[in-house]
Amino acid sequence: MGKPFKRILLTGAAGGLGKVLRDRIKPWAEVVRLSDVADMGEAREGEEIVQCDLADKDAVIKLLEGVDAVLHFGGISTEKPFEPIMQANILGVANLYEALHKAGTRRVVFASSNHAIGYHRTTEVLDANSPTRPDSYYGLSKVFGEQMGRYYFDRFGIETVCIRIGSSFPEPANKRMMSTFLSYDDLTELLRCSLFAPRVGHTIVYGQSDNDSTWWDNRLASHLGYKPKDSSSKFAHLFPDTSEFPAQDDVTTMYQGGKFLLDGPQY
Amino acid sequence: MGKPFKRILLTGAAGGLGKVLRDRIKPWAEVVRLSDVADMGEAREGEEIVQCDLADKDAVIKLLEGVDAVLHFGGISTEKPFEPIMQANILGVANLYEALHKAGTRRVVFASSNHAIGYHRTTEVLDANSPTRPDSYYGLSKVFGEQMGRYYFDRFGIETVCIRIGSSFPEPANKRMMSTFLSYDDLTELLRCSLFAPRVGHTIVYGQSDNDSTWWDNRLASHLGYKPKDSSSKFAHLFPDTSEFPAQDDVTTMYQGGKFLLDGPQY
Amino acid sequence: MGKPFKRILLTGAAGGLGKVLRDRIKPWAEVVRLSDVADMGEAREGEEIVQCDLADKDAVIKLLEGVDAVLHFGGISTEKPFEPIMQANILGVANLYEALHKAGTRRVVFASSNHAIGYHRTTEVLDANSPTRPDSYYGLSKVFGEQMGRYYFDRFGIETVCIRIGSSFPEPANKRMMSTFLSYDDLTELLRCSLFAPRVGHTIVYGQSDNDSTWWDNRLASHLGYKPKDSSSKFAHLFPDTSEFPAQDDVTTMYQGGKFLLDGPQY
Amino acid sequence: MGKPFKRILLTGAAGGLGKVLRDRIKPWAEVVRLSDVADMGEAREGEEIVQCDLADKDAVIKLLEGVDAVLHFGGISTEKPFEPIMQANILGVANLYEALHKAGTRRVVFASSNHAIGYHRTTEVLDANSPTRPDSYYGLSKVFGEQMGRYYFDRFGIETVCIRIGSSFPEPANKRMMSTFLSYDDLTELLRCSLFAPRVGHTIVYGQSDNDSTWWDNRLASHLGYKPKDSSSKFAHLFPDTSEFPAQDDVTTMYQGGKFLLDGPQY
Amino acid sequence: MGKPFKRILLTGAAGGLGKVLRDRIKPWAEVVRLSDVADMGEAREGEEIVQCDLADKDAVIKLLEGVDAVLHFGGISTEKPFEPIMQANILGVANLYEALHKAGTRRVVFASSNHAIGYHRTTEVLDANSPTRPDSYYGLSKVFGEQMGRYYFDRFGIETVCIRIGSSFPEPANKRMMSTFLSYDDLTELLRCSLFAPRVGHTIVYGQSDNDSTWWDNRLASHLGYKPKDSSSKFAHLFPDTSEFPAQDDVTTMYQGGKFLLDGPQY
Amino acid sequence: MGKPFKRILLTGAAGGLGKVLRDRIKPWAEVVRLSDVADMGEAREGEEIVQCDLADKDAVIKLLEGVDAVLHFGGISTEKPFEPIMQANILGVANLYEALHKAGTRRVVFASSNHAIGYHRTTEVLDANSPTRPDSYYGLSKVFGEQMGRYYFDRFGIETVCIRIGSSFPEPANKRMMSTFLSYDDLTELLRCSLFAPRVGHTIVYGQSDNDSTWWDNRLASHLGYKPKDSSSKFAHLFPDTSEFPAQDDVTTMYQGGKFLLDGPQY
Repeated sequence: MGKPFKRILLTGAAGGLGKVLRDRIKPWAEVVRLSDVADMGEAREGEEIVQCDLADKDAVIKLLEGVDAVLHFGGISTEKPFEPIMQANILGVANLYEALHKAGTRRVVFASSNHAIGYHRTTEVLDANSPTRPDSYYGLSKVFGEQMGRYYFDRFGIETVCIRIGSSFPEPANKRMMSTFLSYDDLTELLRCSLFAPRVGHTIVYGQSDNDSTWWDNRLASHLGYKPKDSSSKFAHLFPDTSEFPAQDDVTTMYQGGKFLLDGPQY
Repeated sequence: MGKPFKRILLTGAAGGLGKVLRDRIKPWAEVVRLSDVADMGEAREGEEIVQCDLADKDAVIKLLEGVDAVLHFGGISTEKPFEPIMQANILGVANLYEALHKAGTRRVVFASSNHAIGYHRTTEVLDANSPTRPDSYYGLSKVFGEQMGRYYFDRFGIETVCIRIGSSFPEPANKRMMSTFLSYDDLTELLRCSLFAPRVGHTIVYGQSDNDSTWWDNRLASHLGYKPKDSSSKFAHLFPDTSEFPAQDDVTTMYQGGKFLLDGPQY
Repeated sequence: MGKPFKRILLTGAAGGLGKVLRDRIKPWAEVVRLSDVADMGEAREGEEIVQCDLADKDAVIKLLEGVDAVLHFGGISTEKPFEPIMQANILGVANLYEALHKAGTRRVVFASSNHAIGYHRTTEVLDANSPTRPDSYYGLSKVFGEQMGRYYFDRFGIETVCIRIGSSFPEPANKRMMSTFLSYDDLTELLRCSLFAPRVGHTIVYGQSDNDSTWWDNRLASHLGYKPKDSSSKFAHLFPDTSEFPAQDDVTTMYQGGKFLLDGPQY
Repeated sequence: MGKPFKRILLTGAAGGLGKVLRDRIKPWAEVVRLSDVADMGEAREGEEIVQCDLADKDAVIKLLEGVDAVLHFGGISTEKPFEPIMQANILGVANLYEALHKAGTRRVVFASSNHAIGYHRTTEVLDANSPTRPDSYYGLSKVFGEQMGRYYFDRFGIETVCIRIGSSFPEPANKRMMSTFLSYDDLTELLRCSLFAPRVGHTIVYGQSDNDSTWWDNRLASHLGYKPKDSSSKFAHLFPDTSEFPAQDDVTTMYQGGKFLLDGPQY
Repeated sequence: MGKPFKRILLTGAAGGLGKVLRDRIKPWAEVVRLSDVADMGEAREGEEIVQCDLADKDAVIKLLEGVDAVLHFGGISTEKPFEPIMQANILGVANLYEALHKAGTRRVVFASSNHAIGYHRTTEVLDANSPTRPDSYYGLSKVFGEQMGRYYFDRFGIETVCIRIGSSFPEPANKRMMSTFLSYDDLTELLRCSLFAPRVGHTIVYGQSDNDSTWWDNRLASHLGYKPKDSSSKFAHLFPDTSEFPAQDDVTTMYQGGKFLLDGPQY
Repeated sequence: MGKPFKRILLTGAAGGLGKVLRDRIKPWAEVVRLSDVADMGEAREGEEIVQCDLADKDAVIKLLEGVDAVLHFGGISTEKPFEPIMQANILGVANLYEALHKAGTRRVVFASSNHAIGYHRTTEVLDANSPTRPDSYYGLSKVFGEQMGRYYFDRFGIETVCIRIGSSFPEPANKRMMSTFLSYDDLTELLRCSLFAPRVGHTIVYGQSDNDSTWWDNRLASHLGYKPKDSSSKFAHLFPDTSEFPAQDDVTTMYQGGKFLLDGPQY
């Protein structure tokens, strides 16, 4: 039996998560088009490689030709000065949606970030309706991307699932990630749900595994059908109980954004 | 040891779900009174058969005599022109509550329907407080029945659990039912919870199994103690992932009511 | 200059408010069609008289021909046994909307009632999102009418303003009406706003003057542009301050529905 | 490897739950200081025994010296006349927080109670934002204690987790406790989560196991990471389904507080 | 014509607002009983003077005999160490309600305070449902008093209006009071509304004039019928526009409680 | 007596509203620095003229030197292709905040726009918590600007009032503007409130006069003290009542954004 999509596009294919996903998404499309500014190596079977700067509109329009659905992991994924962030993540996303519309592509999964809401406290529990409070220029650019998706859905019906990814790594690297951990398997399943749900409109969902502690309630995205199978709890032994409470004014534990609170424009 | 109730009434006993429930509810009462406009066959042990048109008030008053609790599955359960709906589902429910009050019956489980909220989008997640948006005359009649229960609780303390039943069949017949599926076992358990909880007041609960994808959050009915055991996920292979997104203007996937959106008064 | 509408229909024209409105609405249409089951006297200039039972579908379909907008004040406006309420207010409203759709009429102002929410306490403040809690069969029929309007808007785009009328009389007849009073001038202005706002969708608004004490917040209907000019305060001398508090179990002051709580099916 | 805390204080160590916890909390601190007005027997290894009346400020200030964190189970835990409640639970908690501040202690787990919200109905589902409705002087004193914690967090950053304990016993003693049951293991785990979460601010959490029926939604405390392992469902056989509904005016089933509704100042 | 009440009680009659109200409340009762711990001078016509310590239960029980309604302005109204606050405002209010219940008095107006919510920011707008965040022991005692009223209403139906008084002085003494000002005339009118509304249940209302800037929305108390006539705007010239913004860490402008943030237990 | 500020900056001084404000803001500062990309004529008394492209960071940093507060009306104020919008309104606002931080300026009034929420329906009533739904690239850039202000407040305490301006013209130019009208006097007063309120944090306020019909509720910004004095009602005669309802699919009346719905990327 054939694969469901004829062609899907993965942007940011040379990035950390892009590499993880490259093979995992193959069952979903006959052709996976991979894109990045960086080198992605050679195309393997069922792949198309298109090196492309998202800030180059003409290139992006060409990139989207013949694409049925997009997994948008491209752009910058750490804090930087504003101008490069703007080129990659703001102009990049504007070019992407303009190209989507031209190409008639109907579904996008957008790799947003918890840094779109990183200035909420770690004692708050958010859902999809909570106001955004970006913690960095990077976080601001993700809020912008989510709103671009909102606009293109209201105007043209192009559907986007915005995944506010927590911490997607092989295992939690610090105590904070016990709350924000998203395993690669769960990330892949969430992408699958987001791609294949019959209707998604403009959905905000938090990208997290079934961790014991969480700051994010995905109740309002339950139409997606995402049920995480992993949990950070299996890594609990890495972070034993401790009485060393963080300093009262330590912003990295006060706010959900963690270390991003120390980057960005300086005090 | 005796069964908890002396006599419970099941209306709509000749209907689809009525037939399913006829044996399943026997453990709950020494006598199960069965009622329908249609033929129900012969009474078996522990049964009383009363053929009855719910639009006939005198007959309904007699029907309720000696009844401790009611499972109200009677009336019309598909879209029809307004007048027959009104006779069966509006006059019928008015007669039922008047008879309940006369008989001193204190607890009703009302088979309401997701069509009471069918004009909400399939990308929304509702709870018991969401406004009703009926998708048909049938759905309107269910909203009416829920409100009649509300009124009789406020006025006389007669308690009703309104179950907004999703799709209760042996298995999901289409992709939509992956979200709305309610197995017969889970339906039975939800009826049991609704009948035996010490207090239910006027409760709205969505009748669904523990499906992966859902549009309905039962948080506000958690006093009932209903924990579904089944899930539509075991039927996932019937509806493989597909890239064939529904047309943007396809109302049967845009709104929760599904095919009911195509019935009713025509455009 | 011509009047804005060619023809509007006022149902219930022989009723209490119908008589009040008969002349007041003339500036809005070249022809005012008046309808009632009761006698309405002779047609005056600019009027058409059509005696009609709302439960008679064919008659209602005929009644709506050539009508641009409807002020629906017809039906029963006090508590009665269920069947006559059903005929006039439930079947009546179903016939009305079917006829509206056939006639291509696009705007309805529906005389709903505070009795749709009469089982809320007099110490609560409601808005358009508050759940309905009817206090009578009459109140139930008004909830039904509002939901019929909701359905026809979702399905066909027919727009309805549901006015939950408080107490529209020359002056407040008791202390309760100090909170619920709606002067005839303010009623007329609210009708005007409801008829001529460019878009109303399905709007719920409470029909009240600018009284000092109120149980109803019209914030969510502020798109209508209704600004009441009168207040019950000018009648404050009729109800001097008193230390005679109502009995703790007096339902007529405990609930917003007032005396309707004593009518309806008896305890 | 050492235990996480140097010294934690358990007040109310001679009480019902105090005795249960005395050994269970030992893994968390090198020294457990135990306090009560009543006799606590001899200190065992790793224990310090300090008999102390919480209404005695000087004694409490001394009690807190060198304490890293507090489990506050002291005071009166049943309904009594107001004055003794005030001494133990109001003055007691005021002394405690003043002493905490002097001692530089940063974390408190406060044994609050469901009786802080006991006048909510058993058909309502509450969360941490629901308004308090105490059902007794005892319940009032718990509301007071929670607010004292709120104040000391806002002012000094002292963090408190208020656990509104349901019914923590070896097994449910009546049907109500099927909804409110908290096993000792789950209580212990909830204490552990409350003590060791990096940040808790001022958190309200309901102390309950994973029961089928519940009146309390802990969604807003999910940052704590508490996942109950037990359920009252294993005791379901003790309370078989029954048709004997409580009397309509039985306050012990109408309100969440249960039997406390019969104590306190008399009608 | 007679005055509405036979006897009302004003506690705290020797205090700042007590003196202001002494004459203003005379039209409401044939006898005004005045009470305070301090000297109140001689009884004038229509007055009864009862010197009384609210912490003395027997005295308070006697004080309430024959009283139809209470204006409770007694107790301490500034920040103090906890114990005197507890005696006057916590034990005092407990004694008061116990006495009310014994005396069969049905209505209380409780002088609560904005310091019950003083730790909310001055850029937030609160209503009656906002969580309490006391800014002082005094504020805590007011939260306690409100909850005592809540309890006595739930249990015995004794009705209380809790007025969270802003700043009731002849004129605003600083810029903050431009937002919190309550003129004496408006205070008097709010008391009148609170005493004479047919039903008040347990109502929270903010005591403020119709000021331009406000932190408090009285929408949920609109059943009381309170319409302020005064505004701080007539004192605007006292506080001309200035570019001297408060320091970023100045708590007296950051939080609604103002200078109370500098009193209480010290940092 | 001196003027409150030493120097304030008005960006966009050559634009439509900039010209209107140029003289009106003079009473607030000894020096008004005016900036625009376009020519602003000669500096008059009390003015400094600085021609400046907001996309030029160095120029903007220089522009902010010595500035106490900013009225940011600069940038593009109509729909355009994305890139120029990005330069002026996204890079421009990033440069502005970076410069503000460098200069130590503490207060900004940001001319946001109703187009940040233009895809909400004209039958909805929004407040400051409503989700943004931009109707154009222009609207998207305004959402971005608001979020930049949010970020700089969370991080550095720089305060911003975001005014979502409706339609600020001498008089309403069409029926829509009857709901969105903001007179020049009211705009000026809203700027004054925003500049001089002691604390504003990050405030969202809708820029509208006291119009009869409105889509926007400013309840959550009432700490600002803005009370509009004008109303579009005095222009009601320009738009007489009409029965010509807009076509059901006319987006310019369906959504709050009006004609902007026809601009932007084409269908």
